[in-house]
Amino acid sequence: MTSTLSQKQILDALSKVNDPELHRSLTELKMVRKVEIRGDVVEIELAITLPNCPFRAQIESEARTAVRALPGVKEVVLHTGTMTDKERQALMGASAEGTAAKYNHIQHVVAVMSGKGGVGKSLVAGLLASALVQQGYRVGILDADITGPSIPMLFGLQGPPEHGPVGLRPLESRGGLKVMSMNFLLANEDQPIIWRGPLIGKAITQLWGDVMWGDLDYLLVDLPPGTSDAALSTMQSLPVRGIVMVTTPQGLAAMIVRKAVHMAQAVGVSILGVVENMAYFQCPDTGKQHFIFGPSHATEVTLTAKAPMLAQLPIDPTLAALCDAGKIEEVILSEMPGLLDAFTRAIPVQIRE
Amino acid sequence: MTSTLSQKQILDALSKVNDPELHRSLTELKMVRKVEIRGDVVEIELAITLPNCPFRAQIESEARTAVRALPGVKEVVLHTGTMTDKERQALMGASAEGTAAKYNHIQHVVAVMSGKGGVGKSLVAGLLASALVQQGYRVGILDADITGPSIPMLFGLQGPPEHGPVGLRPLESRGGLKVMSMNFLLANEDQPIIWRGPLIGKAITQLWGDVMWGDLDYLLVDLPPGTSDAALSTMQSLPVRGIVMVTTPQGLAAMIVRKAVHMAQAVGVSILGVVENMAYFQCPDTGKQHFIFGPSHATEVTLTAKAPMLAQLPIDPTLAALCDAGKIEEVILSEMPGLLDAFTRAIPVQIRE
Repeated sequence: MTSTLSQKQILDALSKVNDPELHRSLTELKMVRKVEIRGDVVEIELAITLPNCPFRAQIESEARTAVRALPGVKEVVLHTGTMTDKERQALMGASAEGTAAKYNHIQHVVAVMSGKGGVGKSLVAGLLASALVQQGYRVGILDADITGPSIPMLFGLQGPPEHGPVGLRPLESRGGLKVMSMNFLLANEDQPIIWRGPLIGKAITQLWGDVMWGDLDYLLVDLPPGTSDAALSTMQSLPVRGIVMVTTPQGLAAMIVRKAVHMAQAVGVSILGVVENMAYFQCPDTGKQHFIFGPSHATEVTLTAKAPMLAQLPIDPTLAALCDAGKIEEVILSEMPGLLDAFTRAIPVQIRE
Repeated sequence: MTSTLSQKQILDALSKVNDPELHRSLTELKMVRKVEIRGDVVEIELAITLPNCPFRAQIESEARTAVRALPGVKEVVLHTGTMTDKERQALMGASAEGTAAKYNHIQHVVAVMSGKGGVGKSLVAGLLASALVQQGYRVGILDADITGPSIPMLFGLQGPPEHGPVGLRPLESRGGLKVMSMNFLLANEDQPIIWRGPLIGKAITQLWGDVMWGDLDYLLVDLPPGTSDAALSTMQSLPVRGIVMVTTPQGLAAMIVRKAVHMAQAVGVSILGVVENMAYFQCPDTGKQHFIFGPSHATEVTLTAKAPMLAQLPIDPTLAALCDAGKIEEVILSEMPGLLDAFTRAIPVQIRE
């Protein structure tokens, strides 16, 4: 038997094995350091990205299987080392977008915005993301509220996040939602970020480009109040596909939310719809609905936004308690199926391969 | 009879007449253009700051009286012109603090802050300012929420403000409170301000230094959410004497408000006390108090702030309705006398002359 086995054949086989996290082949990622053919024995040296790479066993097994499948191969001897810092740097490339950007595949970036503070942007982002995950979508939340982040507490998540090969790994909620927040990077959750705007903008683009979001159907960006740096940087630096605008019944809120609507229109980002939060309080004793923030001015917002009302959510003490306890994923609201349906119709995901 | 009347005597007399708005003498303000003595007749030419100066008659009358009082004066002939732009520019000087800064006398600058959005900072600032005015204090509100201003709507005030001799004149509420907000300078109240942080900071220092606040016992600064530019510029550029920290019962709010507390401590501004807003909802049917945002976490804030609880305010539909109608000055809350008392004890004003 003549050995027709060539280096090229081996490398071709390895080029069909992907790093499960980076979604690129071992050859493209330059993880194959050496291939030696001795008769029907193939010796391979791999370099994985990090010593504690959680996918090491999977990569080794798939590489072995791929090479063993070649005609003429009887034995595969595999050595696995770790990339040097320099080799890993090369992975990240010099992309202006961030170290992890080219490995992320995010179908739709949707911002949850209001202009007004305390209307429940994070609540809406959290509820919507949880509902989407429960439907089987792959979802992330980027907490763009650098100085007043709510998302970590709603999901009961605490940092620090792990460093992956090309960036930070998002934390995962119990339900499987990927989450990244500035608060994960602080020593204490109540430590302040006393930064001027340009740094705030930079932090947001880093939470986007230096985080290993991986494959997502939806990435929801939870914006802080206002129409300054955070909103500007998000709309200018991230491929925002649309905005969910959150308001409350008060005329005061509606006036300020309309500012946010005008900003979105000025920068050319479309508004998918409006969610009115704290629409009413249902008295647990009498069952009566109290419109404690007065009659609704939310229609003014939908008119200015030229967008539909996606949902009207109540004030619910159970909801507040679950949120404070980090259990937003356990919230059950009769309004959620309607919101979910309206959202996925407004911005459907393409069928996955 | 020998006329001993001299130019110096006349100018001395005029140096005791003050411009009622700028609180400086006519001579210091270079408003006396010419003095001529012809026997017992004195002819004076004054230059007032603006053609429509609301104090013209008062200035003329006081100048005439002062000069007439001199021995040897029988008649005063007064001509009043208007300063040229150049003369008025000289009034403003080149103060880095702003065009009106040197004419303002503000005893205490107090910031109303939270870190968290939508907790009722503007409501607390508005209620406190109104109560202080009703007690006879001279009070102003500087609305430092450039992108999401609430103060104009709470008081039913609309711009544009008038231009005074050395800066903008604040608007006055029905109760006599002086108010200045970025929203007064916009063509429409729902026009967005899409500015990055440094401009936001600059706008706040201008609302401070280029506005003719005049004599005030208290100037309350209503800060936006966050610990970024607005809070930083206010604490670094304005002589902030203390902070009223606003929170709500939710643990989520308390966590973010504690960030603001730590920021204040980091920049060395003392916290006068904490106000908990939305503490409970009193059902109009049953009278029962519902703790709709869950059990209070406000104590965590007072402990971190090492400051007393100044008041706990309810959620009240009447209050929301009055605020939306621009009638915050008509709000009656049983908690207000206590808040007022605690505030004026914490930061008393000096007895006026």
